[in-house]
Amino acid sequence: MPISSIYNLYISSDKEYVRILTNILGFVPRNLSLYKLAFRHKSVGNHVKKGFKDSNERLEFLGDAILGAVIAELLFKKYPFKDEGFLTEMRSKIVNRNHLNQLSRKLGLGHLISYDNKSANRTIQQGSLLGDAFEALIGAIYLDKNYAASRKFITDRIVKPHIDIDTLEQTETNYKSKLIEWCQREGRDVTFELISEEGEGRARLFNIRVLVDSEEYGQGQDYTKKNAEKIAAERACEVLNI
Amino acid sequence: MPISSIYNLYISSDKEYVRILTNILGFVPRNLSLYKLAFRHKSVGNHVKKGFKDSNERLEFLGDAILGAVIAELLFKKYPFKDEGFLTEMRSKIVNRNHLNQLSRKLGLGHLISYDNKSANRTIQQGSLLGDAFEALIGAIYLDKNYAASRKFITDRIVKPHIDIDTLEQTETNYKSKLIEWCQREGRDVTFELISEEGEGRARLFNIRVLVDSEEYGQGQDYTKKNAEKIAAERACEVLNI
Repeated sequence: MPISSIYNLYISSDKEYVRILTNILGFVPRNLSLYKLAFRHKSVGNHVKKGFKDSNERLEFLGDAILGAVIAELLFKKYPFKDEGFLTEMRSKIVNRNHLNQLSRKLGLGHLISYDNKSANRTIQQGSLLGDAFEALIGAIYLDKNYAASRKFITDRIVKPHIDIDTLEQTETNYKSKLIEWCQREGRDVTFELISEEGEGRARLFNIRVLVDSEEYGQGQDYTKKNAEKIAAERACEVLNI
Repeated sequence: MPISSIYNLYISSDKEYVRILTNILGFVPRNLSLYKLAFRHKSVGNHVKKGFKDSNERLEFLGDAILGAVIAELLFKKYPFKDEGFLTEMRSKIVNRNHLNQLSRKLGLGHLISYDNKSANRTIQQGSLLGDAFEALIGAIYLDKNYAASRKFITDRIVKPHIDIDTLEQTETNYKSKLIEWCQREGRDVTFELISEEGEGRARLFNIRVLVDSEEYGQGQDYTKKNAEKIAAERACEVLNI
């Protein structure tokens, strides 16, 4: 074990924090400030420069990209005879915000995140807080170690214990029912509305929007009404964080 | 130099091909079949299994993800005081299809790509052929070597010689003028049309679509008409590969 790790784990005043992180990560973190930054929501960002607050948003940008690459490779190798459309869809089932929120919760990241709970802004309410911190954590691991370590963390600590890829493969997410169910539960009104249709016969393109309590939450365009509704509903689920 | 490289470079019947590739890559490729696959367009894909053709599309999926991660890191480090919105925008300036087509042309990949020029399908006409092969090449490098080698290739062989990031930073892509200029040049008619507006005052949301020769090519939604048009125009530029 490198000296810096021994220091972090046994001597540093942060040793409690280091032990918690080590349990999550599977290795002793070196540069603690990266991890602290990963768990700092923008509502408690430090003003570093005029117009610039230091929060986990930049690390989230980086982590999102690293996660995307690792999952791409994993699916590429797991499914040698599936085309890129399938791979893209499978990846978005894994890395969508709701799934990342769940994973973040399973890892217990909630306790580590610092945020201003008075500023009950939309992000916090919608709970993307957890998924954002999850991606930022991956960005932090990448900078603290390297690509191989991020890949190992994602594979061994996330995918193997928490993601059942074969089950995900079977689940066709039915966004329309998901949205309707959610609206019923929340006592909200949902309507799908045809905005326009263009072309004729098979080449007719439908443009549909979905309204929740008369407010538009998404649009979808496709050659069948059913698919256009599905796309609009998917967009609405994303915006509403359902 | 490993024996496999010596064999590929001096003995193999593919040695001419290996030399061309070595010039492009900056290293001697090991697994040639990966590179051959990267340059095989789907119009000449081999039937491997029922319903599955082996072409560069899967490698493109992988390469796109690796490229995204490498560019994310590069921008993250180059701009320590810029927020994730800026980083995302800069990345899309670098990895958009048109720019990748240009880079691919500069690397001379056009000569290596095999495709069926009789099947004048949309992809080939629109010229995304080059950018697709470029991404697939990065996927091939990743599988042939590793992440570090892909990163080195992208940094040393693409970014340093061919991308002027500071100039890109200054250029605000004006998609509306770009689209209008292109339509004038091609003798096509372009119209922006307000589909709907919702809400009141500052919270009024405009939904605009752009028609080229009466056919819809994109929609945009924003709180100002100008921005909604910009988004719609950007979408149309993407679809039309302008």
